Amino acid sequence: MSLDGFVTGPDPDMDHGLGHGGEPLHTWAIDSDDEIDAAVLRDATNASGAVVMGRRLFDIVDGPKGWNDEMGYGAAHAAQPPFFVVTHSAPEHVRLDLDFTFVTDGVESAVKRARDAAGTKDVYIMGGGDTVRQCVDAGVVDELHIHLSPIVLGGGTPLFAGAARHEMVQQSVLVSRTATHLTYALQ
Amino acid sequence: MSLDGFVTGPDPDMDHGLGHGGEPLHTWAIDSDDEIDAAVLRDATNASGAVVMGRRLFDIVDGPKGWNDEMGYGAAHAAQPPFFVVTHSAPEHVRLDLDFTFVTDGVESAVKRARDAAGTKDVYIMGGGDTVRQCVDAGVVDELHIHLSPIVLGGGTPLFAGAARHEMVQQSVLVSRTATHLTYALQ
Repeated sequence: MSLDGFVTGPDPDMDHGLGHGGEPLHTWAIDSDDEIDAAVLRDATNASGAVVMGRRLFDIVDGPKGWNDEMGYGAAHAAQPPFFVVTHSAPEHVRLDLDFTFVTDGVESAVKRARDAAGTKDVYIMGGGDTVRQCVDAGVVDELHIHLSPIVLGGGTPLFAGAARHEMVQQSVLVSRTATHLTYALQ
Repeated sequence: MSLDGFVTGPDPDMDHGLGHGGEPLHTWAIDSDDEIDAAVLRDATNASGAVVMGRRLFDIVDGPKGWNDEMGYGAAHAAQPPFFVVTHSAPEHVRLDLDFTFVTDGVESAVKRARDAAGTKDVYIMGGGDTVRQCVDAGVVDELHIHLSPIVLGGGTPLFAGAARHEMVQQSVLVSRTATHLTYALQ
C-alpha cells in the first residue's frame, strides 16, 4: 500500500497490473535484496493454505504479463495452494497451471471454501483492494497485513474506500530498507 | 493518520477536533505510557523552531476544547515556538497566550516566514491535512513524519487527497504499543 492508501497506481489494466507508476509498491517483493523482505514474502507464501482473490486481480495474474516461472505463486519454487476466485462467471480459458476454483456466490462463500481447503494453514485474501475491504467489513478477517511502501501515488485503487470503522491491535512491525511490514489483529 | 489515510474522523468541529470517533488517532500522544511515544512527542516538540498550521486547525486548538495547560504547545512545560497560521483574515480574538502570526498570502509564505523564525531548528507543519498536502506538493517539505494508528476510520479528513505523486526514502521507523512512527525523506 502507498502512504495515501492505494494498492495500485492509476488505471490498472492487463499491461499495467499495478497501474501506471505503481511499480514501487512491490519493490519489496520483487526487487529487494533485503533479507527482511525476503522473509516476509517467504513466510506469507509458506503460510498460505488457500488464497482468495477477486476477478480483476485474477485476470491480471493469469494474463500475458501476469505470474510466470519467476514471479508470484506461479513460480516453480513457490508453494501452490488452491485459489478461490470471486467472479460472476468462470473464464473460458485459464493460462496458468494452478488449482483455480471460480466462486460465483460471493466473497464470504469464497472465504468459507478457502478455509475448508486450507486445513491448519492460513487463508490469504490476496486482493484486489475491494475484495480485501469487503472481507474486512464482513468480519471474516483475523489479521491485516499491510506492506507500506515509501510513495504517495496520488491516485489508483484504494484499499479501504467505503470501509466501515475498525479498531485494531497492532501486532508485529518489520522494517526493511524498502518498506514497513505491518500486522494488525482485528477486534 | 489512520490506516485509511485520515488525520481526523468524520465531521471535525470545535467540540470534536479529531472528528467523531477520531480520538484513537492521538492515543500515542495523549494517552500512552509507552516511552517510545513519549520520546517521539518530546523530540518533535523540542525540535520545533516554528510551527505552521491552517486556519481550521487554529480555530480548534484555540477553541474552548483546544490546547490547555496539560495538552499541546499550550502546556506549561512545553517549548513555545512562534506559530504561523495560514488564513484569509486574522481572527478578532485569540484565547491562547502564545506567539501567533496570521499569514494571509498563502502557505508557502507562511513556511518561508516560519523558516526565518526557526533559526537552526525545524519548521513543523502541523496540519491540518490539506495544509500538509499543499506543502508537500509545493516541494517545501524535507521530511514527512507519519504517526500511524491501528484504526480504519472509514471517513474523515484525508491527509493526501488530491496529492501529486511523490517517491520518498524511508528513514526511521519507531514502533510503540500504540502506533508506528514513520519518517520519510522527500526527493
